Amino acid sequence: MEHSFLINLSLKQWDRQNKLLLKVLGGLSDEQLSQQVAPGKNSGRYLIGHLTAVHDYLFPILDLGKQMYPEIEPLYIRTPDNPTAEQPSVAELREMYTAVMEKLADSFGKVSESDWLSRHMYVSAEDFAKEPHRNKLNVLMSRTNHLAYHIGQLILLT
Amino acid sequence: MEHSFLINLSLKQWDRQNKLLLKVLGGLSDEQLSQQVAPGKNSGRYLIGHLTAVHDYLFPILDLGKQMYPEIEPLYIRTPDNPTAEQPSVAELREMYTAVMEKLADSFGKVSESDWLSRHMYVSAEDFAKEPHRNKLNVLMSRTNHLAYHIGQLILLT
Repeated sequence: MEHSFLINLSLKQWDRQNKLLLKVLGGLSDEQLSQQVAPGKNSGRYLIGHLTAVHDYLFPILDLGKQMYPEIEPLYIRTPDNPTAEQPSVAELREMYTAVMEKLADSFGKVSESDWLSRHMYVSAEDFAKEPHRNKLNVLMSRTNHLAYHIGQLILLT
Repeated sequence: MEHSFLINLSLKQWDRQNKLLLKVLGGLSDEQLSQQVAPGKNSGRYLIGHLTAVHDYLFPILDLGKQMYPEIEPLYIRTPDNPTAEQPSVAELREMYTAVMEKLADSFGKVSESDWLSRHMYVSAEDFAKEPHRNKLNVLMSRTNHLAYHIGQLILLT
């Protein structure tokens, strides 16, 4: 039994959630995605933007390079849904999400086992020595749960 | 680096989602939990029942014993929300959820590393030989994502 076997389990879970998201998005029109998932809550459009921005942020956190779309971060991370803000269309957001996921998949293919178990880029070497679970794999697991959380909201638009 | 280190990462993610659920439930009154998370969708009450039944089902799947509340399974697994069905109150469901989680936590403490990596009880030895990722740890990871998915819905009641 290799460590890589356990790392692959986590990667499979990530892929599975992403396939589920694409299935849900594929079943929703741009108009449906412009609606709020529940009265007074975030719109589907905001949630695609949010997931795009959060996953794009994995590049710097996992030491895989720069964000592809840093300009959307202020709109979709730690900022509430603002329907009147100038922002990409649903169609554009769908394309950006796909582009981020394709580049991430390509990058993940090059991450070694020891890389996955090394510290992520927003924890210091000192803190990591005290809290060795704060590795890159743990970030991926957290983002998988985060993705599932928002899929549970997007499905309400179907 | 031990395998148990990676197994612990998954257990920590499970614990984290469960703490988040308890925090969300703690902020919601029984009356709020009786509402639908979005118009025409499942109620909070149904979702607590569903999570209780699904987590209770972990006992047989992970070979940890019998379900504590098999009688609620027909109400909350593979059955849509039926507000008029005779069912436990929100207060009772909260207690059942807590009881299941406490017993699970106790049982998880006794599962060895090799147990986590062994087949779950609903895959045959033959299929497991072909698909070795179908182990008990993978079930836990899937249930963690499933839990996050429904927390994303319950949070809409806040």
